Amino acid sequence: MLTGAVSKYGVQTDLAVEARELIVHREGPPEIPGVEVETVKTEVSFITRINITTEDGARIMEKMPGRYSTLEVPGMRERNRDVQEKISQDLAGELEKFIADIAPEAPVLVVGLGNWNATPDALGPKVVGNLMVTRHLYEMTPPEVRGGLRPVATISPGVLGLTGIETGEIIRALVVQIEPSMVICVDALASRSVKRLCTTIQIADTGINPGSGVGNRRLAINQETLGCPVIAVGVPTVIHAATIVSDAMELVQDPSKAQGPATADELPQKTQFNIDPQLITKGIPPDGDQDRRELIHSILEPYMGNMIVTPKEIDVLIDDVAEIVAGGLNAALHRSLDLERVFDYLQG
Amino acid sequence: MLTGAVSKYGVQTDLAVEARELIVHREGPPEIPGVEVETVKTEVSFITRINITTEDGARIMEKMPGRYSTLEVPGMRERNRDVQEKISQDLAGELEKFIADIAPEAPVLVVGLGNWNATPDALGPKVVGNLMVTRHLYEMTPPEVRGGLRPVATISPGVLGLTGIETGEIIRALVVQIEPSMVICVDALASRSVKRLCTTIQIADTGINPGSGVGNRRLAINQETLGCPVIAVGVPTVIHAATIVSDAMELVQDPSKAQGPATADELPQKTQFNIDPQLITKGIPPDGDQDRRELIHSILEPYMGNMIVTPKEIDVLIDDVAEIVAGGLNAALHRSLDLERVFDYLQG
Amino acid sequence: MLTGAVSKYGVQTDLAVEARELIVHREGPPEIPGVEVETVKTEVSFITRINITTEDGARIMEKMPGRYSTLEVPGMRERNRDVQEKISQDLAGELEKFIADIAPEAPVLVVGLGNWNATPDALGPKVVGNLMVTRHLYEMTPPEVRGGLRPVATISPGVLGLTGIETGEIIRALVVQIEPSMVICVDALASRSVKRLCTTIQIADTGINPGSGVGNRRLAINQETLGCPVIAVGVPTVIHAATIVSDAMELVQDPSKAQGPATADELPQKTQFNIDPQLITKGIPPDGDQDRRELIHSILEPYMGNMIVTPKEIDVLIDDVAEIVAGGLNAALHRSLDLERVFDYLQG
Amino acid sequence: MLTGAVSKYGVQTDLAVEARELIVHREGPPEIPGVEVETVKTEVSFITRINITTEDGARIMEKMPGRYSTLEVPGMRERNRDVQEKISQDLAGELEKFIADIAPEAPVLVVGLGNWNATPDALGPKVVGNLMVTRHLYEMTPPEVRGGLRPVATISPGVLGLTGIETGEIIRALVVQIEPSMVICVDALASRSVKRLCTTIQIADTGINPGSGVGNRRLAINQETLGCPVIAVGVPTVIHAATIVSDAMELVQDPSKAQGPATADELPQKTQFNIDPQLITKGIPPDGDQDRRELIHSILEPYMGNMIVTPKEIDVLIDDVAEIVAGGLNAALHRSLDLERVFDYLQG
Repeated sequence: MLTGAVSKYGVQTDLAVEARELIVHREGPPEIPGVEVETVKTEVSFITRINITTEDGARIMEKMPGRYSTLEVPGMRERNRDVQEKISQDLAGELEKFIADIAPEAPVLVVGLGNWNATPDALGPKVVGNLMVTRHLYEMTPPEVRGGLRPVATISPGVLGLTGIETGEIIRALVVQIEPSMVICVDALASRSVKRLCTTIQIADTGINPGSGVGNRRLAINQETLGCPVIAVGVPTVIHAATIVSDAMELVQDPSKAQGPATADELPQKTQFNIDPQLITKGIPPDGDQDRRELIHSILEPYMGNMIVTPKEIDVLIDDVAEIVAGGLNAALHRSLDLERVFDYLQG
Repeated sequence: MLTGAVSKYGVQTDLAVEARELIVHREGPPEIPGVEVETVKTEVSFITRINITTEDGARIMEKMPGRYSTLEVPGMRERNRDVQEKISQDLAGELEKFIADIAPEAPVLVVGLGNWNATPDALGPKVVGNLMVTRHLYEMTPPEVRGGLRPVATISPGVLGLTGIETGEIIRALVVQIEPSMVICVDALASRSVKRLCTTIQIADTGINPGSGVGNRRLAINQETLGCPVIAVGVPTVIHAATIVSDAMELVQDPSKAQGPATADELPQKTQFNIDPQLITKGIPPDGDQDRRELIHSILEPYMGNMIVTPKEIDVLIDDVAEIVAGGLNAALHRSLDLERVFDYLQG
Repeated sequence: MLTGAVSKYGVQTDLAVEARELIVHREGPPEIPGVEVETVKTEVSFITRINITTEDGARIMEKMPGRYSTLEVPGMRERNRDVQEKISQDLAGELEKFIADIAPEAPVLVVGLGNWNATPDALGPKVVGNLMVTRHLYEMTPPEVRGGLRPVATISPGVLGLTGIETGEIIRALVVQIEPSMVICVDALASRSVKRLCTTIQIADTGINPGSGVGNRRLAINQETLGCPVIAVGVPTVIHAATIVSDAMELVQDPSKAQGPATADELPQKTQFNIDPQLITKGIPPDGDQDRRELIHSILEPYMGNMIVTPKEIDVLIDDVAEIVAGGLNAALHRSLDLERVFDYLQG
Repeated sequence: MLTGAVSKYGVQTDLAVEARELIVHREGPPEIPGVEVETVKTEVSFITRINITTEDGARIMEKMPGRYSTLEVPGMRERNRDVQEKISQDLAGELEKFIADIAPEAPVLVVGLGNWNATPDALGPKVVGNLMVTRHLYEMTPPEVRGGLRPVATISPGVLGLTGIETGEIIRALVVQIEPSMVICVDALASRSVKRLCTTIQIADTGINPGSGVGNRRLAINQETLGCPVIAVGVPTVIHAATIVSDAMELVQDPSKAQGPATADELPQKTQFNIDPQLITKGIPPDGDQDRRELIHSILEPYMGNMIVTPKEIDVLIDDVAEIVAGGLNAALHRSLDLERVFDYLQG
């Protein structure tokens, strides 16, 4: 829902990989205690699995304890159907690790969070619109055909300003009514880095937990409030304007370092500049000046609080990303079925 | 939701005025026992208030007992903003009669029924998108400003094929959660007459009651299932293809009579033909041959069951009608407030 | 542009196969003089190639002399990506026969006819939106990479009511400016048969020739007016309401015969009715009563002239059909290029 | 078309008022030679009329010689229909000064520039979609009814990437074909200030003149290339990400000064900060360091060149702004007609 949380670094990020990058980048290795990290590289994706196992780790990361899988996929913006299918497969593989906890025929509710009237926030509703919805077919299907068909239901609850109802209230009411074994929330996220917009997918088993102090009344959407596991699937589609300025200042100060270490070879190479860096950075105090960052943020907020930074071609990108994420969900949710057969069945 | 019910006349109509017209037209006056009728004419609307007071009346009308107000407004298709505001005012006046039963500050849930992916069925979601949603503002509003502000929430639950969840289930779950004093459902209807498409608004206090034998599993959405009054607001946007053929046959047989008596002077005059009617109608059995009608319907159904008849310019008309209906609802729901102030407040 | 032409049979059709069916159906074999017909069956399509070689044939068919290829593909409505790709390939194969007359690097202008504000009429603009547009890249491409890249430009001129300019005027102006070697017009058509809606693609080398007497002022869009070959690609998306009624009357009269012979085994079987046909058809004069048909049409026109019949799910179907047609055009237009390479190049 | 031009101040702006503000702000009064300025305040708008009368003035302003009227209207974002109508009236008043040069019945072509697939760039096509198009009705209208009806035609040519044809080519071809007496281009602009997004309308008689050195091949769209007067109407809807960072740096350095003098009392007051500015700005070199600005821009461009800054609610704002601009154009173009009559006529 594009809200983001302001961390102690004065930075709004919904991504665990960014949180970690910031910390390691600023405070340096060794690794963070209570935070296990594993990375895998596929043909198209660079996958980072972060497991926050202790309260200490959670405190340092400013993230809830739990598992986070992040796919960084520069090819997501490429508009190549072949690449997109590979990303969907990688996503399905990661999702399976989260869905494996419930039975193959256990019912799932997929929630498309976000505002369908705001293009970069419409990811959730668009993903949900591309899903294979089967809950209503399940009962009508003879068991011998059913073989592994999972009952999947969906809802796009809208946002508070559109409905007058907290998103969490709507979801909780539905969960009570239809009793799914798992809820999967799909949402657009805010990132702090241009390079991650529409190129990164995060899966987390922590649900959605509004940052304290952000001033919004959003109810948490997690196992505690819903009574069943809640998986959050998110893709950053915007940067808050105030964030990009903070980062840009760092970038200007030290182009070689500012955005943290590149995570995949495919990422666009940073441009070389033949300029005298002294000309630019003279006098800017060294990195890590926490107070200064917060002040910058507070100055910019009144001017830019309502502004988002997004790719020019976001309308087209959102549609592509929605198809990729829906493809991964469809494959992961209906894993034991031959996909062709499912499709045929649905159309029959 | 564009389903319609096949009456004993082999005709699909969701409109009480059409049901009555058919009966009176075919069986003639005097009036139907247990059915009270009152008509009013305003500058732009012809209003018919039908009250079905007995089970006998309900059986004859094939409609639930209850109150039905119908506005027939040829000007609704005219794309004239001035006329549209007058229609909204007439609608607000009729709606008030239905809403008057609850207190001015009693919370209301407005439900936009229908499929947002099918233009003529998207009326409900579009109306809801134009409403003044206030439930979330109510608590934040100081009582002295609040003065009559009604908490209004909305939901567009989608259709079974999109969500896998019965619409009635979603609404019931939400009603349990947020406990409104009244539910208002807005829906696109099927009519049996070209002249009523996008020119008629029906309000009924009977809720939405799927016809028996139509083969769909829709739960009723009414006071019995939800535990609070349920008002249904509907506008016909399509005719089923099989219906239009039945009617067309009658029209060909007897142009002067087929569509029932015109209800408002503004309706387009029927064209005069200088032809020998014998050439067309020779041998077609007289009106009222019930078996024949049903057979015609059953022959056409397999070919045309999935086809709808709708105005060419339906995409534009739906937007106009949605604004008109939303205007009427906004005025009726927030009656005790100065409208300007409400608008100012919302934007503040 | 969903206008259609009223033939002497009182029927609006834009399809040569329908014109022929009507004639053969009513007047019986042998074949029509001056009209050559060839049929081919592929895995998914039934292809009919009609060549009207004489003025006599043109007069009987009420179509311009020229080549017409028609793909009848029941699977087009199935929403199966695999089937859709096969249809695109069949379409590309047929299109190649029409495009073969110009050189592989000869520039082509593709025109998306129709009204983007009316869902069933938006096919042309939607197809054009899915095309690989290359004209602007051609000059920037080194010849060794270019290898067979064809410069393709597109325009969606809108309709007269939206622009105040005849579509033909806009196209002619552009043709003078950019001098393509061929113009391909993509358009939504009116059919006379429910079974053909969104299941049929027609290609013709006759361009677009408004019927005489239809009362619209549309300029012809053909080789004569534009000075280069004009290919028309069309898909029926609506039936005019008055047409469906005429046909339905015939269907009621003789269900076994009314819609003409089925053309492909995959077409949905006609339902068997266990009824006494006499009950329905008694007294309706025998088929072929030309005057009666015209009279029916003239009676219905004032009531239904503005009404269209279209599948309930037209919003979704239009998107599918647009992708299929665009896929066929992309493959046919850039034939000598390795498709993968084109895609890579475009995204680079 | 959201391209913008990089001025010597390293700033992308399409607005004459911003160019002037920058200059006066940095170099101080007295006024710029060859640049006449007049300001007017209405109930809702602050209007600035800039007339660049000499080549010197043009060089300093980095704008073509000509007349520029700018309406600054904070209320444009308020979603209040009453205010919106007043803005339309102010706009019509300004437009009339530009249109007065041609006869009341002289034909006008309105061009909706921009990309309908990119929300903030879709302003032009959306405005054009709300215009009263009359060119095709003109001939059919009896002279006594016509009384002042102006023939208005429209086109939305799309962008180069969508059509493969330079926008300027399409317009020039059409101008040759239909010979309008004036062309009015409506376009989304890039601004350098958050406060101007969707609150400012600029009218200029200079047409559209792509900046030199920007690297795009756009043809100029002006009197010289088209042979008739060309009026440009633009509304800023985005800021380039690299621009906002430059400005933000200045803002951080000196909050009291950075965005130039406020132009209307209604503009939101700048927030007061209780902080020690020294903490933030220590060491940043003084304003006006031209080389540094350019360097900042060149560093950020590779990261942010494709990023835009836009209000969160841009999807809704664009629709509002399109209606306001179309309202102003409709009133200005058909000035001698009674508006009600025009509307009635169009619907008849």
